[in-house]
Amino acid sequence: MAEIPTAAISRLVTYLRILEQLEAQDISRTSSSDLAERAGVSAFQVRKDLAYFGRFGTRGMGYTVPILKRELVRVLGLNQTWNVVIVGMGRLGQAIANYPGASDYQFQYVGLFDVSPAIVGRQVRNLTVQHMDDLRAFTSHNRVDMGFLAVPPDRAQDAAQMLVDAGVRGILNFAPVVIQPPVEATVQQEISDEWRGVIIENVDFLAGMKRLAFYILNPHLKDAPMTEDTE
Amino acid sequence: MAEIPTAAISRLVTYLRILEQLEAQDISRTSSSDLAERAGVSAFQVRKDLAYFGRFGTRGMGYTVPILKRELVRVLGLNQTWNVVIVGMGRLGQAIANYPGASDYQFQYVGLFDVSPAIVGRQVRNLTVQHMDDLRAFTSHNRVDMGFLAVPPDRAQDAAQMLVDAGVRGILNFAPVVIQPPVEATVQQEISDEWRGVIIENVDFLAGMKRLAFYILNPHLKDAPMTEDTE
Repeated sequence: MAEIPTAAISRLVTYLRILEQLEAQDISRTSSSDLAERAGVSAFQVRKDLAYFGRFGTRGMGYTVPILKRELVRVLGLNQTWNVVIVGMGRLGQAIANYPGASDYQFQYVGLFDVSPAIVGRQVRNLTVQHMDDLRAFTSHNRVDMGFLAVPPDRAQDAAQMLVDAGVRGILNFAPVVIQPPVEATVQQEISDEWRGVIIENVDFLAGMKRLAFYILNPHLKDAPMTEDTE
Repeated sequence: MAEIPTAAISRLVTYLRILEQLEAQDISRTSSSDLAERAGVSAFQVRKDLAYFGRFGTRGMGYTVPILKRELVRVLGLNQTWNVVIVGMGRLGQAIANYPGASDYQFQYVGLFDVSPAIVGRQVRNLTVQHMDDLRAFTSHNRVDMGFLAVPPDRAQDAAQMLVDAGVRGILNFAPVVIQPPVEATVQQEISDEWRGVIIENVDFLAGMKRLAFYILNPHLKDAPMTEDTE
């Protein structure tokens, strides 16, 4: 499974979302060209993306929606439980905690953290917001697979460090900054040990706004025929 | 400027974000390898992405941070004012309205809309939330360049239709569904007129969660050397 482009993983996520919508509409069969049209890519692209992970359909017969959905759920690791803490429980953290759909995938919020006296102690859903100082003790007693960062931009790097120090190996960063593993001063370009293998993904509202601005000004680029992995 | 991959636009947005962080740290020069390391791509990729839009640096001399930043701002269309309405003013819409940084780029919230009697009439920032029924009248008297969709998933398609009917040509969709232009029943595969040229970009928390799950399970794929546009 080497050499799979990041863009292909993003597209798998889109295909899965489309399959869920088809299932909700009681549509039981689809095809690469149907998926392609709904996803805004080429049928060739759909077939290529799926082929990284196996053979899912029957040539000329298309795909069975629930089967392909189940396979993509498995490929993406969504058939297992993910224990999540949210760091930063202002408006954004609360919006994330209440975002519809997360619980469909066994993403379980197990801890909520903040530093503000006005927020620590509050109830959000069925959890009490804890102080960041208690994060490390919490992770030493509870399995935490992911941390969602919803703090202000100027706090994001420090909060990410606290998550990593507490042993959290996956971070979904909602702040509009690039989180970077600190580089050891003594060994040039060497990432500090505790950051090795930490995965960071970003959800950036501003990035979406900027892409939208670009494509409103350059709509012909949005319509360009999709080829290879470069969609 | 044809044939520019979508992924390249996303990377330009990342480079711009890095340049802002460098500027905030009073770092005035950078290079393709420095940008590459910070963005987690190859230096070749950085040079290729920038080359779509012109020649920004001096060979062997790297880039001047404020100049490259200004050029990317121009390329992305962020040197002009964008008038934005938010549709859906629950927790998510409020989090978006208050997300730090949007105002750095002349994204101006000019209208906020909802359908809930509990929310319509509320003050959020300096605006009063209006009823969706008043959207069309609002857009006929005010320039609106973008609509941000922050409604529940099962309302997203209808709300997108209302935005398009009101003449809004760019939609940033925060709901975890794929918005689709309706296809005219009479003319097969023909997109209805009012949707022609409408640009839709997505900001999907769940997609971020799913990508993170995949890469936690497959960290070796995250570390794969980046080539071409397939990062």
